[in-house]
Amino acid sequence: MTQKTIDQNLTLPSVNQQANLLVAELVTNADALRLGLFKHESGCTIVDAGLQYAGSAEAGRLIAEICLGGLGEVKLQADKRFAGFSEAIEVKSAQPVLACLASQYAGWALSHEKFFSLGSGPARALAQREELFKELAYTDKAESTCIVLETDKIPPVEVIEKIVRDTKIAAGKLTVILTPTTSIAGVVQIVGRVLEVALHKAHAIHFPLDNIISGSGVAVLPPVSKDFMTAMGRTNDAILFGGEVSLQVRCDDTAAAELAANLPSSSSKDYGKTFAQVFKFYNMDFYKIDAMLFSPAKVTVTNLQTGNVFTGGQLNADLIALSFAN
Amino acid sequence: MTQKTIDQNLTLPSVNQQANLLVAELVTNADALRLGLFKHESGCTIVDAGLQYAGSAEAGRLIAEICLGGLGEVKLQADKRFAGFSEAIEVKSAQPVLACLASQYAGWALSHEKFFSLGSGPARALAQREELFKELAYTDKAESTCIVLETDKIPPVEVIEKIVRDTKIAAGKLTVILTPTTSIAGVVQIVGRVLEVALHKAHAIHFPLDNIISGSGVAVLPPVSKDFMTAMGRTNDAILFGGEVSLQVRCDDTAAAELAANLPSSSSKDYGKTFAQVFKFYNMDFYKIDAMLFSPAKVTVTNLQTGNVFTGGQLNADLIALSFAN
Amino acid sequence: MTQKTIDQNLTLPSVNQQANLLVAELVTNADALRLGLFKHESGCTIVDAGLQYAGSAEAGRLIAEICLGGLGEVKLQADKRFAGFSEAIEVKSAQPVLACLASQYAGWALSHEKFFSLGSGPARALAQREELFKELAYTDKAESTCIVLETDKIPPVEVIEKIVRDTKIAAGKLTVILTPTTSIAGVVQIVGRVLEVALHKAHAIHFPLDNIISGSGVAVLPPVSKDFMTAMGRTNDAILFGGEVSLQVRCDDTAAAELAANLPSSSSKDYGKTFAQVFKFYNMDFYKIDAMLFSPAKVTVTNLQTGNVFTGGQLNADLIALSFAN
Repeated sequence: MTQKTIDQNLTLPSVNQQANLLVAELVTNADALRLGLFKHESGCTIVDAGLQYAGSAEAGRLIAEICLGGLGEVKLQADKRFAGFSEAIEVKSAQPVLACLASQYAGWALSHEKFFSLGSGPARALAQREELFKELAYTDKAESTCIVLETDKIPPVEVIEKIVRDTKIAAGKLTVILTPTTSIAGVVQIVGRVLEVALHKAHAIHFPLDNIISGSGVAVLPPVSKDFMTAMGRTNDAILFGGEVSLQVRCDDTAAAELAANLPSSSSKDYGKTFAQVFKFYNMDFYKIDAMLFSPAKVTVTNLQTGNVFTGGQLNADLIALSFAN
Repeated sequence: MTQKTIDQNLTLPSVNQQANLLVAELVTNADALRLGLFKHESGCTIVDAGLQYAGSAEAGRLIAEICLGGLGEVKLQADKRFAGFSEAIEVKSAQPVLACLASQYAGWALSHEKFFSLGSGPARALAQREELFKELAYTDKAESTCIVLETDKIPPVEVIEKIVRDTKIAAGKLTVILTPTTSIAGVVQIVGRVLEVALHKAHAIHFPLDNIISGSGVAVLPPVSKDFMTAMGRTNDAILFGGEVSLQVRCDDTAAAELAANLPSSSSKDYGKTFAQVFKFYNMDFYKIDAMLFSPAKVTVTNLQTGNVFTGGQLNADLIALSFAN
Repeated sequence: MTQKTIDQNLTLPSVNQQANLLVAELVTNADALRLGLFKHESGCTIVDAGLQYAGSAEAGRLIAEICLGGLGEVKLQADKRFAGFSEAIEVKSAQPVLACLASQYAGWALSHEKFFSLGSGPARALAQREELFKELAYTDKAESTCIVLETDKIPPVEVIEKIVRDTKIAAGKLTVILTPTTSIAGVVQIVGRVLEVALHKAHAIHFPLDNIISGSGVAVLPPVSKDFMTAMGRTNDAILFGGEVSLQVRCDDTAAAELAANLPSSSSKDYGKTFAQVFKFYNMDFYKIDAMLFSPAKVTVTNLQTGNVFTGGQLNADLIALSFAN
């Protein structure tokens, strides 16, 4: 221990080492959490969180913390904001940029023939396959790792081999967690991206990530749907219309005020319809949807430099009711 | 680890093994939790959670988790639903049938001469003395066990001997936790049955238990009363009029809708008075009270098969105010 | 284990031993919590929770639990009571007198030349330098200890030497945690005194401390301010106008009713203005402010002897808005 004299930590925490502790907890409690465990033909461990096994909300909560690289806390709690939907997920992090962007963001495209999934979790920080990592300038080391896939299919051997190659972690040291969109654990871990979505949009609108010190978010939990399109719609709407985020930043007040004004989903030209309606409007072409739509409904920005607080956006109970009841 | 191909876990978690970890925590922190510990003449360990010792809400919370066989999470949290009563207990489980019915339900009648108490907790799953266990088809193994008694008396040696005989666990490996109805820990652990009461009534109205996947409940905490009748009335009313439960089920929508309609306390012919008033109406004969009354006030049923949500019942602030202020 | 026959535990828990576990956790997770760690020239370990390092709300939460000697639980949670300020800190203890008065209260004056700070935390119980300890009749033993200072300066060697002398713990075994009023961790740990402030005032108005069995409190979290005066004002106002406390006591109903009536901040002649306004009114002379002002806004007293509940005071949203927005 020697005195450090700068305002940022010199040593950044390891998203893999923190997450590995949580992966061990998930595997140990697999029975109680209604998870399946099996050895994939590639040698990696598969955690089935909603394909053949029921999974559970608590499993989803733990998987969300794993996605955050162990650098965030996720809680399920009562939600009194929307009539009929009484539970919310809350996410907090003192390292939101690392937790959300270097680990949780589902940014690693993994495909082979008909299989396609976007990888999330600490393995991304080892693989460093995305442009984003150049900007983050964050690298990590670990002896084992974990990836979370929002899918209802077992990944083929070729996909696992790619993960092994890029992370340089042997298959025997890799855990792959599968969470279908239509499962309880899937819904929880997806809506658990409420803070990540805010970080991602802050980045897209060029707010300097180094100026974001800490953050928290809460989003209403939608009912699970067995229909994929309904499930995808509801989980998006839970954040777009039922999500609130608080960011603590350091910058001048003009920049903080602009962030609060531009971050909420209501700043998008596509705001005003449920996700399913927007998706249909664009003939199911996801990439035609305005990227500015993907953001929490309501944002509070506290400028630690001045103590001033800026807010933007608002919850939209009508769209939540429309989405969750359809 | 080999692949399992069915929708239910083949391995069911052990309510005794999970609970034993929590019993160890309770005993280790006895001083901080204001609990008394002593060796009973039978050789078992007695935890005094409100007879000669004050006990505490945190002790009650931990005892509620022990009652749930370590398969549920119990939290004390703020409650804004009833003026003047600002704290609630929340219970969640990904294994509600095992947690609530195979462990928490106070269904094991233990008596000797003037002593009578209904045993709750994981020892029930070893003893298998109740009809209910035939339907649950759940057995458990353990090297030590625990039972919770809602009583203000030390159980006689004969009662402990019966527990030892039926569980086949030596007295030296048995922990008996005593929680009077008039103590803080007692009130917390009783109102912590909000989810169990719903499971028990679901069973009574013939909803198939295998169709219940997960559940959560919340109930307002009443003020502790030193008067047994008042305490019993308030803890019941906290659930009957101030309890809300969410169940995630798998069935057809008709069955889910019926469950939501019939589960709440308001479906009972005895609904409309405080528990103390009903009890007096039946001249203190507990078994004359309509069994359908014992259920949470409000119920939300989410059908995981279809994504549809059904609700029934409502909170009753007038009866809570009448009960808690008397 | 032998039977104890009195209503109080014979063995009191050790605030130092319980806190040391939390100090270890704080130090281990320093990087994730954005804390600086360095060896002071005196040999003690300094934790920088907001001078050169950003710190975090989670660090503040953990520091609040350290201040409570490990005998209380501190949570950050959603707060719907005040428009625009959506987070609260909650504190619970089954040993509120020991946790708050024998450990958390910032009562140990530590000064040398220009340095002045009031020490808080378990080291106070070893040093026994305050009059208060005569009344508490509580002593503690430990092989290492910790003190928390609300300061933005590194303490001089002379101050550390005084702590070492009075606690009889070598500098190498002492951890000194620094939390400026203008830092996130500082704000959290200060507002985390909501229950302590109630205990301190209960003592000041001569309510017998032995009659207080358990307690909990919640207070709204103000935005961090970089201006010391604003920060001091807001953290005080968060408790005085946005703090609520519940105490469980044992006494006659007259005494419980009096406690509920006299405890809230509104019982003070200086009630009605923000802390900053009062402070200016007295020309920045802290000790001219009526001591009765320092108390939570709203109080609920449950008499465990009778089951009756007494309330006093009320939240003041106008003063919270005025204070937090200035």
